[in-house]
Amino acid sequence: MRSYDECRLLVESALAGQLRGLGQIPAGLLEAMEYSLLAGGKRLRPALLLMACDMAGGSVEDALPFACALEMIHTYSLIHDDLPAMDNDDLRRGRPTSHRAFGEDVAILAGDGLLSAAMELMLRAACAMGDLRGTRAAHAIARRAGVTGMVAGQFVDVTQEGTAPTEDTVSYIHAHKTADLLTAPMEAGLVLAGAPNEQVCAGAAYGFHLGMAFQMVDDLLDVVGDAAALGKNTGMDAALGKLTWVALRGVEETRRDAAEHIRLACGALACFGGAETPLCTLAKETLARVS
Amino acid sequence: MRSYDECRLLVESALAGQLRGLGQIPAGLLEAMEYSLLAGGKRLRPALLLMACDMAGGSVEDALPFACALEMIHTYSLIHDDLPAMDNDDLRRGRPTSHRAFGEDVAILAGDGLLSAAMELMLRAACAMGDLRGTRAAHAIARRAGVTGMVAGQFVDVTQEGTAPTEDTVSYIHAHKTADLLTAPMEAGLVLAGAPNEQVCAGAAYGFHLGMAFQMVDDLLDVVGDAAALGKNTGMDAALGKLTWVALRGVEETRRDAAEHIRLACGALACFGGAETPLCTLAKETLARVS
Repeated sequence: MRSYDECRLLVESALAGQLRGLGQIPAGLLEAMEYSLLAGGKRLRPALLLMACDMAGGSVEDALPFACALEMIHTYSLIHDDLPAMDNDDLRRGRPTSHRAFGEDVAILAGDGLLSAAMELMLRAACAMGDLRGTRAAHAIARRAGVTGMVAGQFVDVTQEGTAPTEDTVSYIHAHKTADLLTAPMEAGLVLAGAPNEQVCAGAAYGFHLGMAFQMVDDLLDVVGDAAALGKNTGMDAALGKLTWVALRGVEETRRDAAEHIRLACGALACFGGAETPLCTLAKETLARVS
Repeated sequence: MRSYDECRLLVESALAGQLRGLGQIPAGLLEAMEYSLLAGGKRLRPALLLMACDMAGGSVEDALPFACALEMIHTYSLIHDDLPAMDNDDLRRGRPTSHRAFGEDVAILAGDGLLSAAMELMLRAACAMGDLRGTRAAHAIARRAGVTGMVAGQFVDVTQEGTAPTEDTVSYIHAHKTADLLTAPMEAGLVLAGAPNEQVCAGAAYGFHLGMAFQMVDDLLDVVGDAAALGKNTGMDAALGKLTWVALRGVEETRRDAAEHIRLACGALACFGGAETPLCTLAKETLARVS
């Protein structure tokens, strides 16, 4: 089975071509979209999609448009989250955020454009398949990214700022704002590979637990991390009155909760019988960032 | 064949159910999305989709999720267009715009949510079909709404404000910002009905010419129309230095150009042999608003 690094590099080398392959995009719009899309990053979500597809014996080549689309969705969400009316952040991956570099109007449209491009890319690929696997994979991603998924989590995060944190609310935000976009690639990758429904569900459970742990680690890094190494400002969550797991449970308890989610993530992979090793390694490395 | 009014009412009565049928949306997010989605309006785009599907013998029932999705896409584009960083408008259909009613952060997310919901709705319906018609229809809509379509037109419109108008630029903006979202329902409705490719192309030509005329009429109404009757401020294009057909060609020439596009739109329907009458009537009524 392909490693995370192999999958990450496949995505990295395909992203620009997938976007430009959609046709004649106005130069300034393309520039703004690529500024954020091609700014590096871990490519965690698209790599997960390729790894899940690979694990179940699917074609990584066929899965690439879906993987790139998911990274476009992740990138659009970052651009809109950073806007002055939202988190008002001016640094992302060590560079000015989209609205600082291009203005708010262009940043809003770059975000809209990336979400639209993602859907178009997946639908084009789905049309080219002889069956509905691509359509079902695109549906899984749209659902996890949508109004009962990522957008819902973002809405609750933005509108609850400054209120007293409750475990229910913080769990909801983490589950939807973060974990849904790690669940989506597992579902989509497995559906593309034609995996049976029980494996798709097991993959989704892995994605959920990895996502919950991932957000806890992110919250921890905002408290204990180094701005230069991270390429973004730290201490922002507290400054914005964000509801975080750390604010609710403290640093040590959050470390323990994250470890438990990683244990559950790896456990969910049992039904893949050994082929899951790179996914389990990836989960453990996520945790190691704050250990 | 069903009339525009019949199709409009079908859409009107289905919109809320289609959105809420996606699952548990956070109450405040749902409220903001419905505020804009259920604010009336002509429902031109979704009605066109149902009329096109009906004309080619397809099931209007099967086409409803796609029609509602298109109206959600149209609505998201209005919410984002109205934002302070874009057109900065505070009145839409006689009521405060989304960001005036709910704040900028919620308005941005309501727009993102409506675009996401549209895609999810189409993909869910496409999954339930036994073939790829739904996938192809969704692809047509995503493409026309995307970075070589509506978003491209909006980008050029926003970034060219205040520069000297050229016919090429204004045509590009009208073709993509407006006409693409009237071409999309013709393509999608006909694809859903299983119409042959030559009919899909003829329908697209109708949508393009109707869209060009429609934008010219809209530009004319901004100059010669009545704010109270329109439910929005007039004179905004000139105030914002917008590139309009009227600014380029004057009122009388724009009236003539619009009439020519309507003539071409009706002509494109010839291959439907009589079944096209309601669409031709609709096109002529569009023109009558400024005659």
